[in-house]
Amino acid sequence: MTAQDLIRPGAVIEMAHGGGGRATARLIRQIFARHFANPLLDQGHDAAVLPRPVGRIVMTTDAHVVSPLTFPGGDIGSLSVHGTLNDVACGGAWPIALSAAFIIEEGFPLADLDRIAASMGAAARSAGVPIATGDTKVVERGHGDGVYITTTGIGVVPDGVEISPQRIRSGQAVLLSGTVGDHGIAILSRRQGLEFGTGIQSDSAALHRMVADMVAAVPGIAVLRDPTRGGLSATLNELAEASGHTITLNEAAIPIRPEVAGACEMLGLDPLHIANEGKMICICAEEDAEPLLTIMRAHPQGGDAARIGTVGDAAAPGTPGLLRMTTLIGGMRIVDWLAGEQLPRIC
Amino acid sequence: MTAQDLIRPGAVIEMAHGGGGRATARLIRQIFARHFANPLLDQGHDAAVLPRPVGRIVMTTDAHVVSPLTFPGGDIGSLSVHGTLNDVACGGAWPIALSAAFIIEEGFPLADLDRIAASMGAAARSAGVPIATGDTKVVERGHGDGVYITTTGIGVVPDGVEISPQRIRSGQAVLLSGTVGDHGIAILSRRQGLEFGTGIQSDSAALHRMVADMVAAVPGIAVLRDPTRGGLSATLNELAEASGHTITLNEAAIPIRPEVAGACEMLGLDPLHIANEGKMICICAEEDAEPLLTIMRAHPQGGDAARIGTVGDAAAPGTPGLLRMTTLIGGMRIVDWLAGEQLPRIC
Repeated sequence: MTAQDLIRPGAVIEMAHGGGGRATARLIRQIFARHFANPLLDQGHDAAVLPRPVGRIVMTTDAHVVSPLTFPGGDIGSLSVHGTLNDVACGGAWPIALSAAFIIEEGFPLADLDRIAASMGAAARSAGVPIATGDTKVVERGHGDGVYITTTGIGVVPDGVEISPQRIRSGQAVLLSGTVGDHGIAILSRRQGLEFGTGIQSDSAALHRMVADMVAAVPGIAVLRDPTRGGLSATLNELAEASGHTITLNEAAIPIRPEVAGACEMLGLDPLHIANEGKMICICAEEDAEPLLTIMRAHPQGGDAARIGTVGDAAAPGTPGLLRMTTLIGGMRIVDWLAGEQLPRIC
Repeated sequence: MTAQDLIRPGAVIEMAHGGGGRATARLIRQIFARHFANPLLDQGHDAAVLPRPVGRIVMTTDAHVVSPLTFPGGDIGSLSVHGTLNDVACGGAWPIALSAAFIIEEGFPLADLDRIAASMGAAARSAGVPIATGDTKVVERGHGDGVYITTTGIGVVPDGVEISPQRIRSGQAVLLSGTVGDHGIAILSRRQGLEFGTGIQSDSAALHRMVADMVAAVPGIAVLRDPTRGGLSATLNELAEASGHTITLNEAAIPIRPEVAGACEMLGLDPLHIANEGKMICICAEEDAEPLLTIMRAHPQGGDAARIGTVGDAAAPGTPGLLRMTTLIGGMRIVDWLAGEQLPRIC
């Protein structure tokens, strides 16, 4: 039986593909198993058995509902792999396996599903992390939106690594691995009525190799966090709140592509609120900042790494820390996070 | 800030609840963190750090799209916990953590979400397994169906346990932990136009404690598998295909409630195709069958456990094994699995 057997012209997802019978088995064999092939998945059980890990386990999950499904620089398939690998890396861990659960709308073209699965398989292979197990459900036309993919990742944390906002201290440095806003603006550029042909690509990328080098050199890193939904402002506000320390950014030091800055200005968006999918925030001791920046810059995903701020004093007991920023014109402003929704379904 | 702050009368999910900003943080704090509270989740990271496991890791994932969201004997919250715990148990493993990813439709009542999260938290606590990490996304009205929940589970396999269809051999016994069809018929009874007031409840339940006792007594169990979507016929056909052995069922020995049998007859459904959510198939050596049945029957979830069949000869090389059944009237018939879809969105 070949893939062409299933993916003939005009073929679409039918409710039977989610029924758990022969049609489901055929869909899994001809699309998912073909693109994701690896020894763990090929066990063919409902549950994949992984080798005995040496260290503590990190577990993270993300539902991906990005719209549109394909955008400049990626698609929901590669994004769902990168997003979860990066969350594992945020635990200071090396990812060892992914799971993938699909909720597909009746009528979704099988050729599109095949392309998304191919992109997902390629992202996982390129990352060196197997998609070990999965699940497929089908919902009726009008009760989904093409395909939603929930990926879960597990990884192993090396001994001595303790990533936690509770380890944030006054005087630590705040590093960022590259430019802000690329993913969100790339998505926006594809949404109906907002095409502005800037050639901006999503930064969607797997960061676990860069993080592994960082953690190996500086096991004492306090925090790693990828500024996705809600952007830099949401992520750093969360860290300021959780740690009870003020964080001060230096606007001039935050890397941003001119075309992203231009698009933000045109659309009235604050680039600090915009989602990234291939960037990492690192908070570390002052003396570790330069060595870590050197390591980040040696990776393709960290070429524009910069020190963007400093952890300030602890707030009064019981009050949350604040995020503030020295602006380009030398003032100081509070950087709040969004109360509402700026860019829905960005990931 | 109290839960009432968020869950006021008429309050519904808005797009902002999925934006990753303050509204998302508030939703997580007031609903999910409140109902799921445990030390792993309370770490408040994107990734949860688990203790070092002692053994191989099992990983499994399931997207839950059951409709309706609440049914006799359970709801999508408890179902999503039980379904994934049982898949972990099917690996012969003891579950150590769950993740939960929510895709919620704009306009979904917060009070309903709160009730589902409460049910989910109660199921996890009762099972003794923490929901260690999670994610929340919101999709626009008309692009979802209330709420979808993807749960992923990891567990630890004791040394010496090797659950695999490749270990199926001629002469092994096929055991089932209880009655068939309860879940599917309970769901059907709630669907519009099909209410038939039989009082049939879903069998949705966590089986990991029963399985742990089985595995401790008989580490050499060949296969554990929960016959969910597609029912007994899909699960055993998969095992027959994967193992290359014919499996012969004894119809008279398959436990079924009279009211489920009656509903199936009325609706023209084959109970062997109907989903179960709290049953386990076990394939084991002939001499282990009685001791395992005794263990199963000692658990509330295994009270009706029975030996339902026997593994027959290996098929000719390269041909799949078949599932067949000695019928009540003494004939023999092939039990095929469904080509199409009998009961969509059963789990």
